[in-house]
Amino acid sequence: MARYFIELSYNGENYCGWQKQPNAPSVQNVIEESLTKLNGNEAIEIVGCGRTDAGVHAQEYFVHFDLDKEIDAKNWAYKLNKMLPKDIAIHAIFQVSVELHARFSAEKRTYRYFIHQTKNPFRSNLSWYYPQKLDLVQMNEAAEKLVGTKDFTSFSKLHTDVKTNICTVYNAKWYEDENGIYFEISANRFLRNMVRSIVGTLMEVGLGKQNPSFIDIVLNAQNRQEAAVSVPAHGLYLWKIEYPTL
Amino acid sequence: MARYFIELSYNGENYCGWQKQPNAPSVQNVIEESLTKLNGNEAIEIVGCGRTDAGVHAQEYFVHFDLDKEIDAKNWAYKLNKMLPKDIAIHAIFQVSVELHARFSAEKRTYRYFIHQTKNPFRSNLSWYYPQKLDLVQMNEAAEKLVGTKDFTSFSKLHTDVKTNICTVYNAKWYEDENGIYFEISANRFLRNMVRSIVGTLMEVGLGKQNPSFIDIVLNAQNRQEAAVSVPAHGLYLWKIEYPTL
Repeated sequence: MARYFIELSYNGENYCGWQKQPNAPSVQNVIEESLTKLNGNEAIEIVGCGRTDAGVHAQEYFVHFDLDKEIDAKNWAYKLNKMLPKDIAIHAIFQVSVELHARFSAEKRTYRYFIHQTKNPFRSNLSWYYPQKLDLVQMNEAAEKLVGTKDFTSFSKLHTDVKTNICTVYNAKWYEDENGIYFEISANRFLRNMVRSIVGTLMEVGLGKQNPSFIDIVLNAQNRQEAAVSVPAHGLYLWKIEYPTL
Repeated sequence: MARYFIELSYNGENYCGWQKQPNAPSVQNVIEESLTKLNGNEAIEIVGCGRTDAGVHAQEYFVHFDLDKEIDAKNWAYKLNKMLPKDIAIHAIFQVSVELHARFSAEKRTYRYFIHQTKNPFRSNLSWYYPQKLDLVQMNEAAEKLVGTKDFTSFSKLHTDVKTNICTVYNAKWYEDENGIYFEISANRFLRNMVRSIVGTLMEVGLGKQNPSFIDIVLNAQNRQEAAVSVPAHGLYLWKIEYPTL
């Protein structure tokens, strides 16, 4: 058996998310269909590095798939890219050790959430338009409180199937760039809806409605009701995935 | 009478172009409808700095309109921006001399044409995806030949209503940026379809199908059939408009 990794990006705007669902277009489904065609209609199943919700983008994403033969990976990448729609881009296909799992081997994931504060017709689907003034210093003071190994129950959707809500956040910080501001957060794992509810909560601090210490109160409550409303999906990007051996 | 200028940007993807047309959404129409509402349903007509074709964007665009009263321009800009869809952004409204005409007073117009050569799901509607290798040195040698006061009949749509096809091109050059390459051209005026047919023709040179001197041959022919096929609208941006007194 040979295991292959695909490195790709996608614009999530027109998808119900990464994961296959009945009667809704998913990124996983579109890629599996094209890969299967490329494989002479012998089904190929792919395993993604994580789920992304409807409308969420991926600047960097990895999947793995297994074959009982070796392929010309460069040629497959070229052909797959041509078959896929313009909102999914294949950057590379390469063989990896059979132990490397796209999801379970990932050691660190990084998300970014982009906000533009001046109306911009070229960013409207790629970033959230939020014109109210935000205090980045206060937001960064609050964001620092997320760093460490903590229970993130308050920032997760209820009734998800994970066994623990403890995550290790390596860094969490707001930055400014030429288009506006963005929040970057890295962790060993993320819970469903976690980044979007964290961003919504940090914005309460940025608006002056809460002090930075509000983050500690929310974390300690271990109750989703304590966090603020989640921000919209179209500002969120899975940005980087790190593996021990890539 | 008071004359006002509006400075704006728009994403042309969902419009039939700047100009009003029956049964098709135009940028002009959408703005006039909102301005008229803002004016207590008294009709306001706007004059744009130029026509853009279906799908063409404007990074910078100016319009003028006249009123028989003075308005709180800053407040109107704020309200108009809130009324308009996300693909049209108002940057400012300000009073100008009644002699300043959005179209006729413009002295210099600049367009940019963006091409990305690596598939990019976040640029697919904002730039043209063209993966073939292009020789920028050759394209720039060809582009230089466009500079000056020349007859651009070969780079214009036939049967347009202009009296002369002579334009003065101030500069024409290809650049590289982090997303790919772009062509920038400034002139006192542009003919219908001119930038897109120039870009298509320069690309023939970039592909090695023609020498840079091909531009002289096409210009001298004064015949649209000599130029290459026009490139798609979604890579083209009206980028900058210059007036004597702004």
